[in-house]
Amino acid sequence: MDVTRRRAYCCGVSGLTTGSIAVKRLLLGKPYRSDRLNSRLLPKRIALPVFASDAISSVAYAPQEIFLVLSVAGISAYSFAPWVGLAVAAVMVVVVASYRQNVYAYPSGGGDYEVATTNMGPNAGVTVGAALLVDYVLTVAVSVTAAAENIGSAVPFVHEHKLLFCVLGIALVAAVNLRGIRESGVLMSVPTYAFILGVMVMLVWGFVQLFVLGRDLQASTAGYELVAEQQNDLTALAMVFLVARSFSSGCAALTGVEAISNGVPAFRKPKSRNAASTLLMLGAFSIVLLMGIVVLAQKLHAKYVIDPGTELSGLPENYQQKSVLAQLAESVFAGFPAGFYLIAVVTALILLLAANTAFNGFPVLGSVLAQDRYLPRQLHTRGDRLAFSNGIVFLALAALAFVVAFDAEVTQLIQLYIVGVFVSFTLSQTGMVRHWTRLLRTETDPDARRRMVRARVVNAVGMVMTGTVLVVVLATKFTSGAWIAVVVMVVLFVLMKLVHRHYRSVELELEEAAAEDDGVLPSRTHSIVLVSSMLIPTLRALRYARATRPDVLEAVTVNVDDRSTRTLVSRWEESDIDVPLKVIASPYRDVARPVINYVRRIRRDAPRDVVTVFIPEYVVGRWWEQILHNQSALRLKTRLLFEPGVMVTSVPWQLDSSNRAARRSDAQYIAPGDTRRGFGASSPGDDR
Amino acid sequence: MDVTRRRAYCCGVSGLTTGSIAVKRLLLGKPYRSDRLNSRLLPKRIALPVFASDAISSVAYAPQEIFLVLSVAGISAYSFAPWVGLAVAAVMVVVVASYRQNVYAYPSGGGDYEVATTNMGPNAGVTVGAALLVDYVLTVAVSVTAAAENIGSAVPFVHEHKLLFCVLGIALVAAVNLRGIRESGVLMSVPTYAFILGVMVMLVWGFVQLFVLGRDLQASTAGYELVAEQQNDLTALAMVFLVARSFSSGCAALTGVEAISNGVPAFRKPKSRNAASTLLMLGAFSIVLLMGIVVLAQKLHAKYVIDPGTELSGLPENYQQKSVLAQLAESVFAGFPAGFYLIAVVTALILLLAANTAFNGFPVLGSVLAQDRYLPRQLHTRGDRLAFSNGIVFLALAALAFVVAFDAEVTQLIQLYIVGVFVSFTLSQTGMVRHWTRLLRTETDPDARRRMVRARVVNAVGMVMTGTVLVVVLATKFTSGAWIAVVVMVVLFVLMKLVHRHYRSVELELEEAAAEDDGVLPSRTHSIVLVSSMLIPTLRALRYARATRPDVLEAVTVNVDDRSTRTLVSRWEESDIDVPLKVIASPYRDVARPVINYVRRIRRDAPRDVVTVFIPEYVVGRWWEQILHNQSALRLKTRLLFEPGVMVTSVPWQLDSSNRAARRSDAQYIAPGDTRRGFGASSPGDDR
Repeated sequence: MDVTRRRAYCCGVSGLTTGSIAVKRLLLGKPYRSDRLNSRLLPKRIALPVFASDAISSVAYAPQEIFLVLSVAGISAYSFAPWVGLAVAAVMVVVVASYRQNVYAYPSGGGDYEVATTNMGPNAGVTVGAALLVDYVLTVAVSVTAAAENIGSAVPFVHEHKLLFCVLGIALVAAVNLRGIRESGVLMSVPTYAFILGVMVMLVWGFVQLFVLGRDLQASTAGYELVAEQQNDLTALAMVFLVARSFSSGCAALTGVEAISNGVPAFRKPKSRNAASTLLMLGAFSIVLLMGIVVLAQKLHAKYVIDPGTELSGLPENYQQKSVLAQLAESVFAGFPAGFYLIAVVTALILLLAANTAFNGFPVLGSVLAQDRYLPRQLHTRGDRLAFSNGIVFLALAALAFVVAFDAEVTQLIQLYIVGVFVSFTLSQTGMVRHWTRLLRTETDPDARRRMVRARVVNAVGMVMTGTVLVVVLATKFTSGAWIAVVVMVVLFVLMKLVHRHYRSVELELEEAAAEDDGVLPSRTHSIVLVSSMLIPTLRALRYARATRPDVLEAVTVNVDDRSTRTLVSRWEESDIDVPLKVIASPYRDVARPVINYVRRIRRDAPRDVVTVFIPEYVVGRWWEQILHNQSALRLKTRLLFEPGVMVTSVPWQLDSSNRAARRSDAQYIAPGDTRRGFGASSPGDDR
Repeated sequence: MDVTRRRAYCCGVSGLTTGSIAVKRLLLGKPYRSDRLNSRLLPKRIALPVFASDAISSVAYAPQEIFLVLSVAGISAYSFAPWVGLAVAAVMVVVVASYRQNVYAYPSGGGDYEVATTNMGPNAGVTVGAALLVDYVLTVAVSVTAAAENIGSAVPFVHEHKLLFCVLGIALVAAVNLRGIRESGVLMSVPTYAFILGVMVMLVWGFVQLFVLGRDLQASTAGYELVAEQQNDLTALAMVFLVARSFSSGCAALTGVEAISNGVPAFRKPKSRNAASTLLMLGAFSIVLLMGIVVLAQKLHAKYVIDPGTELSGLPENYQQKSVLAQLAESVFAGFPAGFYLIAVVTALILLLAANTAFNGFPVLGSVLAQDRYLPRQLHTRGDRLAFSNGIVFLALAALAFVVAFDAEVTQLIQLYIVGVFVSFTLSQTGMVRHWTRLLRTETDPDARRRMVRARVVNAVGMVMTGTVLVVVLATKFTSGAWIAVVVMVVLFVLMKLVHRHYRSVELELEEAAAEDDGVLPSRTHSIVLVSSMLIPTLRALRYARATRPDVLEAVTVNVDDRSTRTLVSRWEESDIDVPLKVIASPYRDVARPVINYVRRIRRDAPRDVVTVFIPEYVVGRWWEQILHNQSALRLKTRLLFEPGVMVTSVPWQLDSSNRAARRSDAQYIAPGDTRRGFGASSPGDDR
């Protein structure tokens, strides 16, 4: 029995779709089959670029932000740079270590949200959710902006039209993602490795020149004098604050580390193991690159400031500040410009891929939140991408808003950034500590206990460390922008709680109703066919209605225009139709209300009956035809839905144009490219 | 039998409505009952202001346009003004005389459109339709602009923010009309009479001062020198052209005369008689006021030019040109400023009422055109105003567009104006001539024949006269703006023809289908209930579906998420539901397509069956709740409608919020004001 019930039909994509959807399809390409999901699991070599590009790419802007902040205190302060770098590296080590625990303990891909929810209750979870959503948006904004800046360092034209290129960049990444993760997976591995390799080569060759060949390398900015804002002597406190601030800017290098913990399910088996080692690689690369860049930049006396005009002296005419990476590449590959441009390109590419990471993560998080009823439900089922693409489009727009609002200035955006990440870092680490404590209560096996205790120590350290950083970040950046991020998080938090409460109240309402429900069938069915003419759609609606064998069947017409009503009635009587035609007066020349009142009366006379209203409807293929048809039918339907105990049945009549529309999209269904992408397989399902 | 069938139920307005509609209601007030239409029939004293304000108000700008054009040729040309005035008056006489024939021959209110259609075929009719639609829009634009100018002549602040006040004015009139004609009927009679009276008094007192008291009245502009563009000596031809042009501008005084012929049904009985005499009054008033203003203005040496800066010499600092009416009032009521302001106010008011006339006429014409299938059908039935209000809103927006495009410059807008009116004048007069000729063929009674012949002569003269004016107008104004009006008319014409053709083709398609139709009933009904949970709405949908006793009844769920599907299936089996549950695989995690393919398969196996898909639906009261519910259900419905032989049945489940929404609007239905406006009467219809 069960078997027969569970017999599943293979249903491929039928092209049946309305115009707008057809357009979407064009844009998005074919949806994937869930049974193909497996084939899209990622081996480590792909997973690293897919999930780590965000974290690694941040070394493209984190180091220069360190210098930028320090430069306020004059050149002397630059000597702090390596120490700040080391501090960031230390945090990185701790965070990576802690998250290795996460991926083992929570391999389901719920990531920080899941950890926080299970161990600290929904509020913590929703907080993390809000924080991460904001963080994703800012990742896109910051990465794309930084990409534009790096390309701009090589190509002045881009520099002059930075904002434009940011917009284009976001649009591009969004488009790529609307086409699906697999393409992007392959697409991304190459540039990520290219970036790592490229920067490595640059660093090594730079240091070799410095220390082995003993050349005197100098950054193009080495010659300029730093004009300290406060003429040198800063109070010790101010200095501390400054260093702390430059540290928080540097911590931008940590964003995206959590990405892997959200992506465990996408890894090949053994998922957790692979994820953990990928995490390790990620950490190693980030630290090496970060430190390398900081140290080399300092050796070459590279300078990077907020406003060159006021903070640097001895500048040439219309001086354009280059990113630190560009400055290094410039002097390291002096006499070999190709190298310089290569670095600029791969940097821009990996930054775009970092933005892409956010695009992969955002909709997934969205659907997790939707599953727990914190976001509209339809975001959960992937409904051939519609919901997911909504998420992608939303993310793109939000990021655009930020980029435009801050005129594509990395330094401005950095101020809002990383608050989100560290909120979720801290909460998830706290959650992990609780997690181990909970397990330890029941665990008896000494080895296991030892492992758990060790893990708990790691996470505890992580908690303290990330918590401290969060405080430092808020303290040093709140007024200069972080507050915006905080506000947005709070708003999101409240919204999600409201959505949740709504769903919950509906649930309760339904449970109550179910309790009161007596479960008896409606005693009789009273069918009403809405008639406005004697055209074939109406007649067929009548036939269909009769086919459902109702206890009462009557045709009803609303008298909005005496003349036409009279003709209708007379023609009705001449015809062989044996269904009585009732004419309802419409004192307000309205269609909907008289019908509703009539239905109400029927319900009043026989409350146990169920009333079915049959509405003949034209189905058209073009949007403008919609304007010419069924307007009143549509309004009537909406209104009738508010009536208890009434069913509304649309009896569609497909006009040729609708079939054309259907054919159009059917034809499109077996578009080329499909088979190449392995969708030919599903078409038999259609015509069988 | 017939009696029982025709038994009409009195259905009042039920307030049941969705949020958006509720808002509209708030804005519009209650709809009228058609059986109350009678009570809204207009006595002559009201009808005159209602329909004549347009025509009469145009004397507020027509005269000054005459001077404005002539001023190009220098002061000497001003001597032509009275003659131009007389010419316009002559045309007025002829047009009024001709239209008196119209109102007798075509009392149905179809107006020029009907006359043209019946006597010259649809194309002529549609041309008239297009012309009048454009004319209505321009009436609003010109009148409101002129109103702003006249107020501006008294209140500099308004003059400086002319455009703003025009926008507000249009919004105001639109709002008034969305509340219904009767209010405006009462509202308008007072100011119209005030204007007539006020200007009369001004003229009389002016002439008395001039000729009886022999005072030397001078307009404030009398002192300035007219700097002729072409230093005096114009070629005779150029002079003729100029006079002709000033004549066509003066003809603006004729716009709105046709309004009455469109409004005959709104008159008290004997409708035609009353309409005709109202027309006569209208003509008389217009001519007297027009000539009076022209002559007085000339006597006072008032000057009115396009650009005072270049065309007038001896101007004071920041001179602001006042409308001719304002100039007259200023000097006639010198020493009695109240008079001056009064004139400005009543002028502005009647001009707003003229705009109002267009707002009354536009939707009526729209519904006539819709009835003949030249515009979307829903514009025909007044569907408690929704359609009509759409018309009103559209008119308001179109007028706004023109006002903004021409920066609220009367003189600019005048160039586009009156082309439309004279197109319809000419066509309708031509139609009338044919009308009489046709009747004369059959008519035998000599008296009748004599009357017809006389009538035909009148209309023939009208035809020739209006035709000539049309040519003159086009010749003198085409390049300076009239072409825009022409283009818009052509576009409207084409659009309406396309709409008509669409409806026609649908008709044919349906007739064909009806011919092919074998008329047999569907052999069996196959009902499918869409299931996604075991909540009460689903269960009730199941019960309802069973109540319709289908031959086959099955529950179907789409497997978008394995886990939840499995739980659903197991709970289903535990439950006592004896309807089999089919699980449809959804390889693309989509809901719609698998269902559609499944339905197609059923249709393929049994083409004679009719498939009914039952969709449980939540009905919510707030717009944002819509976002949280039934998104996929809605998409599925739209898609299913494209399937032949499928009925889609919504089984609504009303959540509390929906009932609240319903209650809200129910409560609103017996709002205060209603009874005062005489709607209490209809409420019993609801609760019986």
